[in-house]
Amino acid sequence: MTHKIAVLGASGYTGAELVRLIATHPAMEIVALSADRKAGMEMSEVFPFLRHLKLPRLKKIEEIDFSGVDLAFCALPHATSQEVIAGLPRDLKIVDLSADFRLRDPEAYRKWYSKAHAAPEIQAEAVYGLTEFYRDDIRNARLVAGTGCNAATGQYAIRPLIEAGVIDLDQIVIDLKAGVSGAGRSLKENLLHAELSEGTHAYSFGGTHRHLGEFDQEFSRAAGQPVLVQFTPHLLPMNRGILATVYVRGDAQAVHRVLAERYADEVFLEVLPFGALPSTRDVRGSNFVHIGVTGDRIPGRAIVVATLDNLTKGSSGQALQNANLMLGAEETAGLMLAPVFP
Amino acid sequence: MTHKIAVLGASGYTGAELVRLIATHPAMEIVALSADRKAGMEMSEVFPFLRHLKLPRLKKIEEIDFSGVDLAFCALPHATSQEVIAGLPRDLKIVDLSADFRLRDPEAYRKWYSKAHAAPEIQAEAVYGLTEFYRDDIRNARLVAGTGCNAATGQYAIRPLIEAGVIDLDQIVIDLKAGVSGAGRSLKENLLHAELSEGTHAYSFGGTHRHLGEFDQEFSRAAGQPVLVQFTPHLLPMNRGILATVYVRGDAQAVHRVLAERYADEVFLEVLPFGALPSTRDVRGSNFVHIGVTGDRIPGRAIVVATLDNLTKGSSGQALQNANLMLGAEETAGLMLAPVFP
Amino acid sequence: MTHKIAVLGASGYTGAELVRLIATHPAMEIVALSADRKAGMEMSEVFPFLRHLKLPRLKKIEEIDFSGVDLAFCALPHATSQEVIAGLPRDLKIVDLSADFRLRDPEAYRKWYSKAHAAPEIQAEAVYGLTEFYRDDIRNARLVAGTGCNAATGQYAIRPLIEAGVIDLDQIVIDLKAGVSGAGRSLKENLLHAELSEGTHAYSFGGTHRHLGEFDQEFSRAAGQPVLVQFTPHLLPMNRGILATVYVRGDAQAVHRVLAERYADEVFLEVLPFGALPSTRDVRGSNFVHIGVTGDRIPGRAIVVATLDNLTKGSSGQALQNANLMLGAEETAGLMLAPVFP
Amino acid sequence: MTHKIAVLGASGYTGAELVRLIATHPAMEIVALSADRKAGMEMSEVFPFLRHLKLPRLKKIEEIDFSGVDLAFCALPHATSQEVIAGLPRDLKIVDLSADFRLRDPEAYRKWYSKAHAAPEIQAEAVYGLTEFYRDDIRNARLVAGTGCNAATGQYAIRPLIEAGVIDLDQIVIDLKAGVSGAGRSLKENLLHAELSEGTHAYSFGGTHRHLGEFDQEFSRAAGQPVLVQFTPHLLPMNRGILATVYVRGDAQAVHRVLAERYADEVFLEVLPFGALPSTRDVRGSNFVHIGVTGDRIPGRAIVVATLDNLTKGSSGQALQNANLMLGAEETAGLMLAPVFP
Repeated sequence: MTHKIAVLGASGYTGAELVRLIATHPAMEIVALSADRKAGMEMSEVFPFLRHLKLPRLKKIEEIDFSGVDLAFCALPHATSQEVIAGLPRDLKIVDLSADFRLRDPEAYRKWYSKAHAAPEIQAEAVYGLTEFYRDDIRNARLVAGTGCNAATGQYAIRPLIEAGVIDLDQIVIDLKAGVSGAGRSLKENLLHAELSEGTHAYSFGGTHRHLGEFDQEFSRAAGQPVLVQFTPHLLPMNRGILATVYVRGDAQAVHRVLAERYADEVFLEVLPFGALPSTRDVRGSNFVHIGVTGDRIPGRAIVVATLDNLTKGSSGQALQNANLMLGAEETAGLMLAPVFP
Repeated sequence: MTHKIAVLGASGYTGAELVRLIATHPAMEIVALSADRKAGMEMSEVFPFLRHLKLPRLKKIEEIDFSGVDLAFCALPHATSQEVIAGLPRDLKIVDLSADFRLRDPEAYRKWYSKAHAAPEIQAEAVYGLTEFYRDDIRNARLVAGTGCNAATGQYAIRPLIEAGVIDLDQIVIDLKAGVSGAGRSLKENLLHAELSEGTHAYSFGGTHRHLGEFDQEFSRAAGQPVLVQFTPHLLPMNRGILATVYVRGDAQAVHRVLAERYADEVFLEVLPFGALPSTRDVRGSNFVHIGVTGDRIPGRAIVVATLDNLTKGSSGQALQNANLMLGAEETAGLMLAPVFP
Repeated sequence: MTHKIAVLGASGYTGAELVRLIATHPAMEIVALSADRKAGMEMSEVFPFLRHLKLPRLKKIEEIDFSGVDLAFCALPHATSQEVIAGLPRDLKIVDLSADFRLRDPEAYRKWYSKAHAAPEIQAEAVYGLTEFYRDDIRNARLVAGTGCNAATGQYAIRPLIEAGVIDLDQIVIDLKAGVSGAGRSLKENLLHAELSEGTHAYSFGGTHRHLGEFDQEFSRAAGQPVLVQFTPHLLPMNRGILATVYVRGDAQAVHRVLAERYADEVFLEVLPFGALPSTRDVRGSNFVHIGVTGDRIPGRAIVVATLDNLTKGSSGQALQNANLMLGAEETAGLMLAPVFP
Repeated sequence: MTHKIAVLGASGYTGAELVRLIATHPAMEIVALSADRKAGMEMSEVFPFLRHLKLPRLKKIEEIDFSGVDLAFCALPHATSQEVIAGLPRDLKIVDLSADFRLRDPEAYRKWYSKAHAAPEIQAEAVYGLTEFYRDDIRNARLVAGTGCNAATGQYAIRPLIEAGVIDLDQIVIDLKAGVSGAGRSLKENLLHAELSEGTHAYSFGGTHRHLGEFDQEFSRAAGQPVLVQFTPHLLPMNRGILATVYVRGDAQAVHRVLAERYADEVFLEVLPFGALPSTRDVRGSNFVHIGVTGDRIPGRAIVVATLDNLTKGSSGQALQNANLMLGAEETAGLMLAPVFP
């Protein structure tokens, strides 16, 4: 059985990554692609790397006939997604890759995104898309909200530790290193090669990054009490990859054991042997997450490092994994591609 | 039916790339991996990016039981390959990725590699592995010699033009830009990140690069007369990818037409519309070749640009494509992965 | 004696490079900086790497009092420069870094820049800024037109060969590799890190790059007859540096000898020993040019490789060198900084 | 007056950086260069980027006549330096760039470097080379021990805070991002471009990096009590630059004020306005340090980010600054080069 798929917002990096992944999916067929400003163009003009594929021409969303479409991926800009999804057929399954439906509390949304949510009634039915923690809900969902890529990385690192109560909730520092594709195909001076290559800097300094909204929501839920973490992201001269170095208080061996046990049956989550170090290169282009743990020289402190590819497990791969669940397909279908190294 | 595969020399980049590709091949199973100095180690220790795969432990070649192995890929260093292959069972199919069996004439081998060939009798049965030009021979071969990655790129650009007689044979200049993985995982000062990043330089200056032996052999064969080209490779700060800019004398539209017609039925060879420009990024991690043609402002001169991924179509992907033919499998099996961009 | 300097267009890369170089100049003081859209800002806000310097605040050009200014560098966009310079005081010395005054023939300008020249009368007094070939004219000039960075590289490689008559004028191929800062600080998709890093492609394919206008003008002048060259530029994932690989017909030893003799007394032009290879890394951040020569295996063909830093010797360093001449200062003042490696 | 300078270990990156900086120093002349394995070669063969300079040929150390040499920079490998310095004339001033004389306590040396110190008697006279904190001692020293590049970065970020007592000494986390040139010109697989580019990973995980020896020594001295910090370095795909993100407990405004006041008169230390973010790119190739401070959303927590170029202020620039003091020269001589951007 082949599921009919639409990708809305196919001219950005996450849209292109969805097409790349679906291209080898045994049970999905792309029947519609949208890109507002590039409507009328062939996908191969926008992304020449996809020119070997037979793909529908780009359309405006309003030109798409959704009858016969089983599931739509929305890879649209934040805020736009809310409005588009509100207008889609009620029987269409949707995986949204934007930030629009991640925060359950409209007040939290207003706080982190500085505007009122435009579709709070739809928000109520959205399931948070961190697959390994919401698998059953996702299976039954009509709308799944993909997580932030940074938010996913941080959660894979320590969410089980919070659930298990093995770390101090008041002492969590997440220092994160992110590749540039997470910022999208947007024309900003600081994303130019000449500005970005051969250097690094922090951004969203001082606890202001929007993915903190997700950390607050999810960690508090996991703990059953309010949890606030420190979080500083850094931009690195690499296209794909996120590496989160998380400083926690707790017994390092216990930390390692909890993670290893929690993820033992998860295909995409690899906990390395104690003391081993993950690298972004080892997950590049794939849906895998590598997690390393060690103890500090100061007793009672541990360091957890988690890495994933922001475009794959951090967004489009995660989205496809969730879509597989929603459609009753094999959860790993289209996602077992090995990382690309070197 | 699943074919049993051995990869000899699995601790280098081409060996790893073979494993990456075979991992999603529907009809191949890796039953043996060799790496002399790393024998005893797990593949995941040598290449952590492959840790999600169940793979046999690395062995020395002499420890491998080849009964039951259908085909061996030899990703061994040049010169070593000759000796190893001479000692392998006669009924084993072999795809060699080294330079050892590319040159039919032992004198040419001696000239370009500065030593006598150690297995000239095996050389006689080797088929040159440029799939689209030797497909029938490859299908029936016991031993296929993978092409040089630079040699493949240059040939895809202009071999049909030589065959068709539409360019001047005395006026061919191949200026080539190559990524660093082509140099392998070898510890050389000029391959260090601090030496290589953010710059470029030519190497094998003045018509001394060994792949000229392949150009001479193949272009002369295609022309039915001796052909000598000029060829200057450059090393670029990128891990994967080769782009050959070839300056020829001939009618540009005819050049484009000949290439487009010759490759019209080839799955992996994409001739772009006249005047369009290929980029290494658009084939990265894939088995595709993109070829662009334009005319110069000086009448009667044309420029052909061809690009491929040196580790995939330039070596391991090509090897797998040839193995598919030799084993009677689908030629494209395991090779339809889309490029990885960005 | 300290010369008073204005830099117009200080918010781009060439403007910033001028400030960097002048900062250690013993006899220059920056008294005015302009940047139209960023007027009112401090230079340290636009370029934090210059924050250790005491610099005047950015102004609009019309706010600058040019009385007391000895020389202005115009690092403005093409086409803008013509109009601005037409309005500057007649007694102000000017070094223009744009393309506006490089082509002596207004028809050539119209051909390559697709518009009529706005200040042909000023064009008449402009001196072409390739220092080592126009030194005496520059010393006496009021207006010097900086060369294109690609045009400078190609000329350093072979202009003496054309003058000396040791190469075939009909057989010149310039294959050029350029870093991204040459494209300026402009917001274009293809200049984003995610698009540009880890790959290469040709651009201005087929003899359409505007610097061909300079090659035509200067090579024809040097030869005393019309000379047309082939020229294909490629964009590389590096911030600074141009490397031109030039294929010529002629005796390689003669080619090397002519270059070595012609540049023997030039401080910034280094001809390497025969057969040695230059690298962009060895001139990065400096005003030096490295040139290598070798013969091809095909007799009568030679290859010349020239490299320079596009922002320094290719534009701002060249501009400063010319300004030194115009002001009667030491020609090398502010320019003896060693390259930055690694 | 010109000081006669020897550089021992001139074939590594810090040696080359010393030569680059001294090249524009108004009062220093390089009279001897050593490189054991490359003795007899010209510096331009080892580092072509220095070919415009007139430099003495490389020698073995024992071939150097130190009479008439005023000061020697020792850019030798760790452990080698101890033995060489023990054999140098007693009246020679020495700036050592190795780790050999940084730790005052021979037991601390043994702990972090896993061997006994070979010259403890010389250790006793060594002054720790963090210029802004040991200026007077350096002025009178015969032997100055250059700091670790990571150790310098971390100390510039928070040493004044420890001295001023405005942060909690038990809650310091230093997450550091380092460019690859800090690892030197050594042939290691993980330093190859193909391994390192486009990715990141932590190293010396779990409080095992040797620069912790310096942090312990210096922070404890500054505090007047034992201080242990957490420290995780990460390797980034950039050649130059270190960025330390330091998480502290204390009032953010007080933190900023203490740093701004402490460094107000320091030429090379720039404290940015509160909330502004430093970038490695803005100090590349220069002796400057940029420091940014902000408060976290969690009250009572602050983040300090410090960045410098590991080869300049982190080693060779620092060494030259100290040499200037030791020789009675202008402290900033040869060091006012602006950063190189882009």
